[in-house]
Amino acid sequence: MKFTQLFSKTKKDSPKDEVSKNAQLLIKAGYIHKELAGVYTYLPLGLRVINKISNIIREEMNKVGGQEILMTVLQDKGLWEKTGRWNDDVVDDWFKTKLKNDTELGLGFTHEEPLVNLMKNHINSYKDLPIYPYQIQTKFRNELRAKSGLMRGREFLMKDMYSFSKDKEEHEAFYEKMKGVYMNIFNKLGLGDKTYITISSGGSFSKYSYEFQTMSEAGEDIIYIIDQEKKLAINKDDFNEEIIKDFNLEIKKENLISSKSIEIGDIYSLGFKYSEAMNLKYTTKDGEDKFVYMGCYGIGIPRLMGAVVESNSDDKGIVWPKEISPFDIHLIGLDKVADTSNKIYDGLIERGFSVLYDDRADTSAGIKFNDADLIGIPIQIIIGEKKLKNNELEMKDRKTQEIKTVSVDSLYDLL
Amino acid sequence: MKFTQLFSKTKKDSPKDEVSKNAQLLIKAGYIHKELAGVYTYLPLGLRVINKISNIIREEMNKVGGQEILMTVLQDKGLWEKTGRWNDDVVDDWFKTKLKNDTELGLGFTHEEPLVNLMKNHINSYKDLPIYPYQIQTKFRNELRAKSGLMRGREFLMKDMYSFSKDKEEHEAFYEKMKGVYMNIFNKLGLGDKTYITISSGGSFSKYSYEFQTMSEAGEDIIYIIDQEKKLAINKDDFNEEIIKDFNLEIKKENLISSKSIEIGDIYSLGFKYSEAMNLKYTTKDGEDKFVYMGCYGIGIPRLMGAVVESNSDDKGIVWPKEISPFDIHLIGLDKVADTSNKIYDGLIERGFSVLYDDRADTSAGIKFNDADLIGIPIQIIIGEKKLKNNELEMKDRKTQEIKTVSVDSLYDLL
Repeated sequence: MKFTQLFSKTKKDSPKDEVSKNAQLLIKAGYIHKELAGVYTYLPLGLRVINKISNIIREEMNKVGGQEILMTVLQDKGLWEKTGRWNDDVVDDWFKTKLKNDTELGLGFTHEEPLVNLMKNHINSYKDLPIYPYQIQTKFRNELRAKSGLMRGREFLMKDMYSFSKDKEEHEAFYEKMKGVYMNIFNKLGLGDKTYITISSGGSFSKYSYEFQTMSEAGEDIIYIIDQEKKLAINKDDFNEEIIKDFNLEIKKENLISSKSIEIGDIYSLGFKYSEAMNLKYTTKDGEDKFVYMGCYGIGIPRLMGAVVESNSDDKGIVWPKEISPFDIHLIGLDKVADTSNKIYDGLIERGFSVLYDDRADTSAGIKFNDADLIGIPIQIIIGEKKLKNNELEMKDRKTQEIKTVSVDSLYDLL
Repeated sequence: MKFTQLFSKTKKDSPKDEVSKNAQLLIKAGYIHKELAGVYTYLPLGLRVINKISNIIREEMNKVGGQEILMTVLQDKGLWEKTGRWNDDVVDDWFKTKLKNDTELGLGFTHEEPLVNLMKNHINSYKDLPIYPYQIQTKFRNELRAKSGLMRGREFLMKDMYSFSKDKEEHEAFYEKMKGVYMNIFNKLGLGDKTYITISSGGSFSKYSYEFQTMSEAGEDIIYIIDQEKKLAINKDDFNEEIIKDFNLEIKKENLISSKSIEIGDIYSLGFKYSEAMNLKYTTKDGEDKFVYMGCYGIGIPRLMGAVVESNSDDKGIVWPKEISPFDIHLIGLDKVADTSNKIYDGLIERGFSVLYDDRADTSAGIKFNDADLIGIPIQIIIGEKKLKNNELEMKDRKTQEIKTVSVDSLYDLL
């Protein structure tokens, strides 16, 4: 894509109404636009990153047998009353609205109730289990405060998978597998080293759940690291003697390293909570009726994007991991070399690279360099008059800022 | 995908609470699930169709310079007050909700206001124009009644493009081009023959707009066909002497053929309405400040899916056009031929076909045939013991119901 055709512009200054680094950088670089606190529009560059993250997650979900669906925002009060979650004292972050005839509706903050209801049409026999529907869908949470940019949204895209299993044993095999699947995803996003499978409370569902916490100064959580190699930690809020006993941990609190961290995913065993409340049963091989055993597996996609920015940025701007960079290459054409720059742009596109090409005519080299560092595509190719006289151009690594002079002819081989 | 792994089941009977053919068939065949009137979840098969339609539209939008973004559901009251559209007397189908601090928010039914507001950060000079942002995003409309299945949703995915041009002339060139772009899309969906570019009122924006109306008994509109070859029509509601004069039409109302029809898209000239109300200006080459000239271009994606089903179905079920069929091929393996069926399934996948493979073991041929006709994938391949003895199988055309016996070896060449 040519810069002159991209409508979003970078800003000189960081937005004054944002305190979080992720929102400041993403707004400054033209990835997102703030509509309201915790409510962001994705501009062309931002949507490309969201789609890349979504596709990495989608691929991993499909690999373990996930079936993608798309549920609705508008929620039927009746379904949520069956589990008690319609009550604002039980769930304190509902957005609610009304039909013309005054029927109350909710805006979905999660989807257990409607999904269990829908599955009553599709689960009858043991042959129908296990199944793993998931969606990438917009959730609404009426947060009292939303000052962390993409990290705590009132409206945000979420991947939520739900598992329906015959029994606890079948559930636990999948639940264990999902720990690895989640770590694969975070590895692909360049967050693997900093991310810990973190034991935490299972809330009202089960004794324990796992959060995936990535170390970051911007985090709202604190974790104790239990095992560096196994990437195991405990959430500070839930640390107690019982956990140490239940997980057979040979640790002393005073020896543990702690860190601020961001929760970038979680997996829960739901057990029979929803299947009992909504009467979701199946018939076993022996003709017995049993409740379905459930689990759920969430990843907030903008939060993940925000966490990547928090972890991968410097004073010049963002440094995207190549897997989710909006483009593979940022091509910078300086003055008087438009012909060569155009040719190289076409050559890169032909070879299957996605390229953001700064083709602006009346813009200084300095502004182009600053914009490229701010936008943060990992590889920059700089074409200038002086080098070109020797049939050379420059390749710059956004992260290390290292610049190499290479011959034009060797470019495609080097990439 | 194997049938035994697809969680959605077909139903024996049509749902009793739906009167429209599209919702009846799509629910019966396991494409969608009704959450509330006008609010549907897309099951795996349904989401595949939605994604195929979206991708056809996306491709056409990108070809004319569209830049994809993703705006928000939650809407800031302040922006809509600037144009007078916050008022429930002006817009009667808002869903509204509230933040914890009682700040009122709307659920977007369209996106002119927030987009114009956002463009104030990105449009400054004539060099920034024209631009064509678009999105495929969920809209909310608080319809009093919603009985037409996917044709009138309270929550539905919409492609909305907006054009920002320097002046009326630049706008009109693009507006004209979009008529052809829209017809390309409807042609690809197999609706081209039945679809008319329909002159209608421009509402509060301009004297006229164009609707794209596809002839159907299920339609809520009526059109008069003006020119079969040019696919031109007039909406009955807007037919008057003034239109005949304005468009230089040599017609007499009593000679025209009329038809019930479904509006499957519309394009509007918005002029300066929003840029004036929200002060969106640019600087011309001569240093003059001018308002931006706007247009908007909508397609409701589920409505399009519904219209295709209304137009392409028979008493056995749906007949998808191949471009948006959830799978290319429906492979039916009958009893005692699982080995060969599996081999052919793998062979088809290897050759790049998407295949729904009915691998159910304890299910009669009759049920499999009925399900295949109900689901409506255009090509069926049937593998049975008898034919297989002669190294043959059957290919069935879903639409014509014609069955050809072909040799197993020739299958891949025939496809």
